[in-house]
Amino acid sequence: MAIKRAINIDNLDFAYTLGQISLTELIKQLPEEPRRFYMFGVPDYNNLGDQAVAYAEKAFFKRVFPEITYIEILESQTDDAIKELVPMLRESDMIGYTGGGNIGNTYLDHEEPRRKVFSTFVNNKTISFPQSVNFEDTEQGQEELRKSQEAYNKNPNLTLVARETQSLDYFKKNFDVDVIYTSDIVASLKPDPSDVERDGILFIMRQDTEKVINPELLERLSYKLNNVGDDVEQTDTVLPFKASDSNADTAANLDEVRISERGWLIERKLEEIKASEAVVTDRLHGMIFCVLTKTPCLVFDNSYGKASASYYNWFEDLDYIQHTTEKDPDKLAPMIEGLKGYEHSYLHDFSHSYDELIDLIKK
Amino acid sequence: MAIKRAINIDNLDFAYTLGQISLTELIKQLPEEPRRFYMFGVPDYNNLGDQAVAYAEKAFFKRVFPEITYIEILESQTDDAIKELVPMLRESDMIGYTGGGNIGNTYLDHEEPRRKVFSTFVNNKTISFPQSVNFEDTEQGQEELRKSQEAYNKNPNLTLVARETQSLDYFKKNFDVDVIYTSDIVASLKPDPSDVERDGILFIMRQDTEKVINPELLERLSYKLNNVGDDVEQTDTVLPFKASDSNADTAANLDEVRISERGWLIERKLEEIKASEAVVTDRLHGMIFCVLTKTPCLVFDNSYGKASASYYNWFEDLDYIQHTTEKDPDKLAPMIEGLKGYEHSYLHDFSHSYDELIDLIKK
Repeated sequence: MAIKRAINIDNLDFAYTLGQISLTELIKQLPEEPRRFYMFGVPDYNNLGDQAVAYAEKAFFKRVFPEITYIEILESQTDDAIKELVPMLRESDMIGYTGGGNIGNTYLDHEEPRRKVFSTFVNNKTISFPQSVNFEDTEQGQEELRKSQEAYNKNPNLTLVARETQSLDYFKKNFDVDVIYTSDIVASLKPDPSDVERDGILFIMRQDTEKVINPELLERLSYKLNNVGDDVEQTDTVLPFKASDSNADTAANLDEVRISERGWLIERKLEEIKASEAVVTDRLHGMIFCVLTKTPCLVFDNSYGKASASYYNWFEDLDYIQHTTEKDPDKLAPMIEGLKGYEHSYLHDFSHSYDELIDLIKK
Repeated sequence: MAIKRAINIDNLDFAYTLGQISLTELIKQLPEEPRRFYMFGVPDYNNLGDQAVAYAEKAFFKRVFPEITYIEILESQTDDAIKELVPMLRESDMIGYTGGGNIGNTYLDHEEPRRKVFSTFVNNKTISFPQSVNFEDTEQGQEELRKSQEAYNKNPNLTLVARETQSLDYFKKNFDVDVIYTSDIVASLKPDPSDVERDGILFIMRQDTEKVINPELLERLSYKLNNVGDDVEQTDTVLPFKASDSNADTAANLDEVRISERGWLIERKLEEIKASEAVVTDRLHGMIFCVLTKTPCLVFDNSYGKASASYYNWFEDLDYIQHTTEKDPDKLAPMIEGLKGYEHSYLHDFSHSYDELIDLIKK
């Protein structure tokens, strides 16, 4: 048939995620020989941190395992994809679930499809990419933990990857599966260096339920920084952010991010950060974007220590990244001014943190 | 501000069409010097013919006028964009409206924004890119014609471009504006040659109200072609088409096509056509895709002669493109078999058909 030969293997997942062919049809067209990795849970929503995770995962496979056929399955496609994949799965196929910070009871729309995937493909190597976990110590939280335990423990071939030691310990204590430890997969990205002149302070602050910094503190801090001559802009890693001097009410909501768009959106966010003298953030991926672009960064925390856990595991020895629990603008402003002075020439290479993950995929 | 310097001029319209910045903010960041062309009516819907038109328009400017800043405005953004552009418009700015086959009363969701654009920017050079027109000879059709006449005639700087002589004559007779004549802008594309081996017959048939070929005729024709050993596949230039042997009900609807996706989708359709020995179509852009890929093609017509008008103006002398009004499968099958034999080595160059349009933009 004409159409079969016309499909480029590099774009098979693109054709599938755009609904241009079914997963069944896609699998029929895959080359027989190479190994296959099915990455489930790929986001099509507007959280740029989660988008960066999926983008970095694909880049990781392309760089380290170019011989593996990598198939992305959107989170919204989970149920249909499971139905289609079950009868077509081969023994050598690997199953993955995208990383991030959403194992737990806070985001059940992410946790529920993950349980289905882990408890379905129990005979194949299954890898949960670098994650943080948070089951709250409430009745609901513990009930959801039990459901996840039941689903995960069904799979004797499952490995959970923790991206900080807090989650590593939690996984070991609460799940009867293999557990390994790496940095967040986004830290494996290698963005282009930039020669943009840096100017101003960028706040990258969450607006959601994990927020612990109140808007009034940010206003007062912003005012203080303005007084010493710093431009301040506010943004977030959840889209859309609104350009400060734009006619904001005409900017449309970007409620869906396509695979073809995520690279551009991430590059743009990195450019924005690269063009700043310093960043203030309570977003884990805000901090990691600063690490990647060697941008001085002051890190607050989210409500359950996601950012600080990673900070103390991975980034504490980077002098241009600092963590604080301070809440007094009079003390915060000089900390930020001080950070601006750092000669952020040293870029840490996290490649070796992924060695165990690479071995796991290899064998 | 950091963000301003971080935006790449090549991607400004991308940032705007994704709602990441407002048009006002975009315009503030444009280089002062070069000329600007605002192309309105850019589609984000799943008609690949219309998508190919927008894709070819942008490619046309990039090739012929690389010095002009080309800003795309989605049809769905028309009202907001007009509001924002009016106070920021400069005398030298040009306004365009995307081409296609939808001037008339059949597609009022396209005609209404076009009227607004033409009747608003009356002091600037305004160009309606190559179009076909169809106002039906009914009370409703003639009433809509009067509305369009009123809107178009308000603009003394408007030029309508017709893509075939039938529309050229109609424009001249019914509108009090300048009119010029070119081929469809999609014919200006220069796709890569391919060395895919051709196999089978591809039907590219419309399912909409412009359809004149009934499904039963296609079934009988398909059966006849199968009998002489030809594989037959059916598709359309409106997405999604369904791969014939796929688990069709799991293929998602592609209801929105992003600018970042249209190039890939068009290339994929061209690949599909290039991989066919012959095409049967009642789609104007089905025929033009065949012209571009030198694929033997038998052309039926739509309900008001859109395809045949262009055929007799532009493609009649291409031996591998043939038009028919025949409806008897017994006669059609041998015509298709005969077409397969053509040595389609000669590619017509339509470049000169755009000379008058180029002069109009230049001066």
